[in-house]
Amino acid sequence: MVLTTAILDTVDELRQTVAALHGELTRNELVIWTAGNVSARVPGQDLMVIKPSGVSYDNLAGETMVVTDLFGNLVHGELAPSSDTAAHAYVYRHMPEVGGVVHTHSTYATAWAARGEPIPCVLTMIADEFGGDIPVGPFAIIGDDSIGRGIVETLRGSRSPAVLMQNHGPFSVGKDARSAVKAAVMVEDVARTVHIARQLGAPLAISQQDIDQLHQRYQNVYGQH
Amino acid sequence: MVLTTAILDTVDELRQTVAALHGELTRNELVIWTAGNVSARVPGQDLMVIKPSGVSYDNLAGETMVVTDLFGNLVHGELAPSSDTAAHAYVYRHMPEVGGVVHTHSTYATAWAARGEPIPCVLTMIADEFGGDIPVGPFAIIGDDSIGRGIVETLRGSRSPAVLMQNHGPFSVGKDARSAVKAAVMVEDVARTVHIARQLGAPLAISQQDIDQLHQRYQNVYGQH
Amino acid sequence: MVLTTAILDTVDELRQTVAALHGELTRNELVIWTAGNVSARVPGQDLMVIKPSGVSYDNLAGETMVVTDLFGNLVHGELAPSSDTAAHAYVYRHMPEVGGVVHTHSTYATAWAARGEPIPCVLTMIADEFGGDIPVGPFAIIGDDSIGRGIVETLRGSRSPAVLMQNHGPFSVGKDARSAVKAAVMVEDVARTVHIARQLGAPLAISQQDIDQLHQRYQNVYGQH
Amino acid sequence: MVLTTAILDTVDELRQTVAALHGELTRNELVIWTAGNVSARVPGQDLMVIKPSGVSYDNLAGETMVVTDLFGNLVHGELAPSSDTAAHAYVYRHMPEVGGVVHTHSTYATAWAARGEPIPCVLTMIADEFGGDIPVGPFAIIGDDSIGRGIVETLRGSRSPAVLMQNHGPFSVGKDARSAVKAAVMVEDVARTVHIARQLGAPLAISQQDIDQLHQRYQNVYGQH
Repeated sequence: MVLTTAILDTVDELRQTVAALHGELTRNELVIWTAGNVSARVPGQDLMVIKPSGVSYDNLAGETMVVTDLFGNLVHGELAPSSDTAAHAYVYRHMPEVGGVVHTHSTYATAWAARGEPIPCVLTMIADEFGGDIPVGPFAIIGDDSIGRGIVETLRGSRSPAVLMQNHGPFSVGKDARSAVKAAVMVEDVARTVHIARQLGAPLAISQQDIDQLHQRYQNVYGQH
Repeated sequence: MVLTTAILDTVDELRQTVAALHGELTRNELVIWTAGNVSARVPGQDLMVIKPSGVSYDNLAGETMVVTDLFGNLVHGELAPSSDTAAHAYVYRHMPEVGGVVHTHSTYATAWAARGEPIPCVLTMIADEFGGDIPVGPFAIIGDDSIGRGIVETLRGSRSPAVLMQNHGPFSVGKDARSAVKAAVMVEDVARTVHIARQLGAPLAISQQDIDQLHQRYQNVYGQH
Repeated sequence: MVLTTAILDTVDELRQTVAALHGELTRNELVIWTAGNVSARVPGQDLMVIKPSGVSYDNLAGETMVVTDLFGNLVHGELAPSSDTAAHAYVYRHMPEVGGVVHTHSTYATAWAARGEPIPCVLTMIADEFGGDIPVGPFAIIGDDSIGRGIVETLRGSRSPAVLMQNHGPFSVGKDARSAVKAAVMVEDVARTVHIARQLGAPLAISQQDIDQLHQRYQNVYGQH
Repeated sequence: MVLTTAILDTVDELRQTVAALHGELTRNELVIWTAGNVSARVPGQDLMVIKPSGVSYDNLAGETMVVTDLFGNLVHGELAPSSDTAAHAYVYRHMPEVGGVVHTHSTYATAWAARGEPIPCVLTMIADEFGGDIPVGPFAIIGDDSIGRGIVETLRGSRSPAVLMQNHGPFSVGKDARSAVKAAVMVEDVARTVHIARQLGAPLAISQQDIDQLHQRYQNVYGQH
């Protein structure tokens, strides 16, 4: 595939952005060694930018990032793409509103995933960002579309931008890569807080009406507009 | 509202102070992403300095901080104030002795808040700083005065400078913003220690008389005078 | 008291050492805010160097450190000494082999102290450094000699260089301030590891004979000689 | 033993590598004070490079590393080798495929070791890297070959590159020192995640067939080839 100069400029900027966002994964202690990845859809193209496979976070400059089509075939860049590329690509093919995908093995979110248990919506922060319980996706083996399909099917049944893949770890999505990273940071934070709350008893429930009101407000009012 | 030069000088200094104190929130791992805020009363004025809404802690220079009146209306600055401004403002209107307010979602304090359970005074450090159990405030939805009112009513029934708002997280107050940040740091520290102590059994009680004596001494003798 | 030039040189060097060792407390996450302190005996003198009261760890240059006699009276320096000075001084008066004392409220050690429960010797590292269980000292109120007396009486009945003062936190001692800091770092580390081991069952015991052999070897063979 | 110039060049490069890899132990919070060590086999020689005993991680330049034969006798360097040298040497003598060995007392792995309990393979990451449960080795006292023998016998019965020595801590091996450090980082990470999962219930099992498939794929496909 030949990329025009205009697309190459967009791609180069996205590679810088995606490389820098991997720094948020380490800063927020969501990943160890090479075990996590961020991708971004190239707007208007059937392309994505993603981390190469098995490369240390210390060596993640923008130029290291690779470009693939939405079936995971390498289009641009010199390294093999992340071994999770197929899952990212499946999400982009089936969720056109998604511009960024993040996968980690962050400790507390993965612990809920190991038990196959959704994180209950017992904090105002969960209602704000996730709009309800954070759901669990099916057990799926790497190598075909089963991880991607499990992510998409689970997210479609929920307001949550994050899914806990059973025995595996969280995947999160967003309108762009930064939003997906924010969801990855927050899913670990609330996974930890609710875990700790549960250790000494039962957290108090929040009513569905309050959850709806909090979610509605946060999605529409919060931040700078 | 037009601010005189003298007040503007005070305000500019407070903006620097408040911006710098947000660095203590990250350094002490009390916040992730943009989820926490510090404010300070402008001494002698019906004004407060507070963090803008949804802005990253990396971008919090003094100039970014905004000034509002004590009903949360923007008076000075270019960004929308924190979505928690109404709660801070309510505290300043009703507690004239308070010069600083801090809100976080720090993990262990929020875990106690999720269960609606006060932190028992089983450490000398809790007696020193909080003078007894750290109380829980009501569940309240953002959008009107109910969070502010819950904070003020709970703090008035206690010697504690911190309150755990149910399903939400801690708010703390102090004579100035730095004291309120100190209380925010300490409430998380003791929330964690007592949580961990409770995981393997029952912490030993401290008698009311000892609590009173420790609190009295710490509030009057500790530090440089 | 007038200090000779030779003693002042020793004191100035010790002040640098003690100031720098406070950096180990923060680096090892044993303290928050101003809640921990290191002291050193001035060799051959009835004097000690200690942290001033209520001063931030960011401002702890050597010159900030104060010198007191072994009853806690200020001899040199401009700030009020730590509120724990009486406890440090009591230890130096009654344990001539001790050259350094450290006090923290480190999380896991304080959690064991809150339950009044010794840390059992179930790790080779505990046998190496502490020679057996890490003992609990009595509940004691600040303000007289009762904390110091509790520390000394507890340490005398043990091979451990650290004691968990009930509802309060750990104190540790060493031949010099660095050794006492090492014991403070290690008591928190093993307090955490044994806590976590205990959460999911009973740690396996180590026989008294093995504990003795490990302790004997570590105290005499380990390190550079 | 006289080393040729060619071997000395290799040795000097390995000393830099091994020194730098100790930085990964601190960065990943696997060690405190001086309690952990990395070694590397000198390729083609009956020699190894290892950390000196009781030296702070701040002072670990390449020149500080020592060279011993595979019985732990000092061949090159000025400091006494790590007190764990005999265990490393035993592994190199008996496992010719091993080029690097790491020992830590990392918190969660050591907690499983304290209970003498293997870490069950309930995460895809464990299947990938360890190929099954992470096994426990026998209780063994330092001073003779019993630790080394316990490591080798346990690893031979497993696909795991890491073993949890009872009441002591993890040892890990790899084709080179970097691989052994990776295993040390990952054993702590999965020890923590499975611990946390277990605190609130039973993690879901992964079938032996899925474990085999994941392990096979990760060992042969992952990374850059």
